[in-house]
Amino acid sequence: MTFKLILLRHGESAWNAKNLFTGWVDVDLNDKGREEARRGGELLAAEGLLPDVLHTSLLTRAIHTAQIALDVLERPWLPVRRSWRLNERHYGALQGKDKAATLAEFGEEQFMIWRRSYDTPPPAISPDDEFANFSDPRYASLPPGARPATECLKDVLVRALPYWYDQIVPDLLADKVVLVAAHGNSLRALVKHLDKISDSDVVGLNIPTGIPLLYELDEDLTPVTAGGRYLDPEAAAASIEAVKNQGRK
Amino acid sequence: MTFKLILLRHGESAWNAKNLFTGWVDVDLNDKGREEARRGGELLAAEGLLPDVLHTSLLTRAIHTAQIALDVLERPWLPVRRSWRLNERHYGALQGKDKAATLAEFGEEQFMIWRRSYDTPPPAISPDDEFANFSDPRYASLPPGARPATECLKDVLVRALPYWYDQIVPDLLADKVVLVAAHGNSLRALVKHLDKISDSDVVGLNIPTGIPLLYELDEDLTPVTAGGRYLDPEAAAASIEAVKNQGRK
Repeated sequence: MTFKLILLRHGESAWNAKNLFTGWVDVDLNDKGREEARRGGELLAAEGLLPDVLHTSLLTRAIHTAQIALDVLERPWLPVRRSWRLNERHYGALQGKDKAATLAEFGEEQFMIWRRSYDTPPPAISPDDEFANFSDPRYASLPPGARPATECLKDVLVRALPYWYDQIVPDLLADKVVLVAAHGNSLRALVKHLDKISDSDVVGLNIPTGIPLLYELDEDLTPVTAGGRYLDPEAAAASIEAVKNQGRK
Repeated sequence: MTFKLILLRHGESAWNAKNLFTGWVDVDLNDKGREEARRGGELLAAEGLLPDVLHTSLLTRAIHTAQIALDVLERPWLPVRRSWRLNERHYGALQGKDKAATLAEFGEEQFMIWRRSYDTPPPAISPDDEFANFSDPRYASLPPGARPATECLKDVLVRALPYWYDQIVPDLLADKVVLVAAHGNSLRALVKHLDKISDSDVVGLNIPTGIPLLYELDEDLTPVTAGGRYLDPEAAAASIEAVKNQGRK
C-alpha cells in the first residue's frame, strides 16, 4: 500500500504571460491558466485519481487552479486548508519587475543567482514598495517580523516544511489522497525534500504548470519512484523546457 | 461591540428554476444563480463588510455561491470549513419531484405540511432511489445510520446546532466576521435559533436567495436587531414573496 500525493502548480497568470516576477503579488490566472487548470482536472479524472483533501497557498492563482480542477472532478466540496507556507517564493525587490529587463540590467550570472540559487535571496522588498502588500489582511496573523521581505528556495523550504509535517503528512497517513495546489518554488521545495535532492542539483529542477505530479509514497513517505510521475509526461517535458527559457524572450 | 454574522442563501439552481424539490441532490447554480452570487458579493463590498472566515455546506450550489461572492470581494483565500450539518433539508422521497405536480397530486394541505411543517418530515427516500446518493463520497465519514433519509425543519435544527456551537460560535467569539453560505432551510434553522422564533411562527419564515443577511450579535449572541438586516431590503421582500408562491406556477 502506498500513500498518494498530487502536486499541482497553478496555470499561467497574467504576469507569467507578461514575463514579470510575481512572488507574493496576488495575480490571478489568465484564460490560458484557467484552461490549464481544467486540463489538470481532466488528467486526474482520466486516471481516476480523486483527491480527498486539498491544501492551497493563500494566493488566488493557486486557489482558482484548485477550484477549477475540482469542479471538473465534481469535488468542489473537498475539505480545504490554506497557508502562506505554501505560497510562491517571495521575490523581494524583484516583484513586479520584468524578467527580460532584469536579465539585461544585471546580467546572466546575477539573474540566474536570483532565480535559481538555493540560498541567495534577491534584495529585500521595501515596505513602501507598491508590491510589498504588508497590510494584506490574509497575512494578518503573521507579525511583520515573521513575514518574508525576500526569500531564496532554502527559505521557502524552511517555512514550508512545518506545514508539510503538521498538516499534509497527517492527511497522508490517514490514507487520504492529498492534492496540493501551489507554486513553482513551494513545490520545488517539497520535491527537494521528498526526493532528497541536493542543494546544488535542485537548481536544475523545474515544475511545469497545470500538470498533476503524482507521488506514491511508502510507509516512511519515501517516493516509490524518485521524481514521481507527471500525468502528461510529454507536456511536462515541453513545459519544463519553456520555463528554463524564461527571461530570454 | 458586536459580533458580525452574515448568512447567505445560494442563488438559483437549475432545479429551483425547474420547480423541483432538491434537498441533498447536488444541483449546481444556473446563470441567474451565479449572477445573484455576484450581486451578493457586491452588496457586501458596498457595505465594506469583509468576511474573515467562511462556513459552507457540502453542496455545490452553496460552495459556488460563496466562491463567486468572495471573488468579488477579492477574498478567495478565506479560511473555509464545510459540513453536511449546513446542508439543505433532506427532502426524502420528494427529492427530484416537481413541486407543482406534488401539490396537484397530494393537495394543498399535505403539500404545505411537507414544505413547511416544523416537525413532520416527508416520506423517507428509498436507498435505491436515483436521488438517494447514499454512496456519495462527500458523506463517507457519516455512517449510513447517521445519514438522513428525510428531514423536517426540526431535524435540520438538531443537526445544525452542533456545528453552530462547535465551529461558528468560536469564530464569532474570536471577533471574526463570519460568512455562512448555505440553504433555505439550514439558514431558517439558524435564524429560528438566533431570533428564538417559536415552532409555529417559523412556518412563515422565508430566506431569499443571494441577499446577504447581516446579524449583529451581542456578547451572549443575541441579535441586536431581531431578524437581522438584509443588505438589500427591497429585493429581499420581493424574493420572499416569490418563494411563498413556489409550487403554484
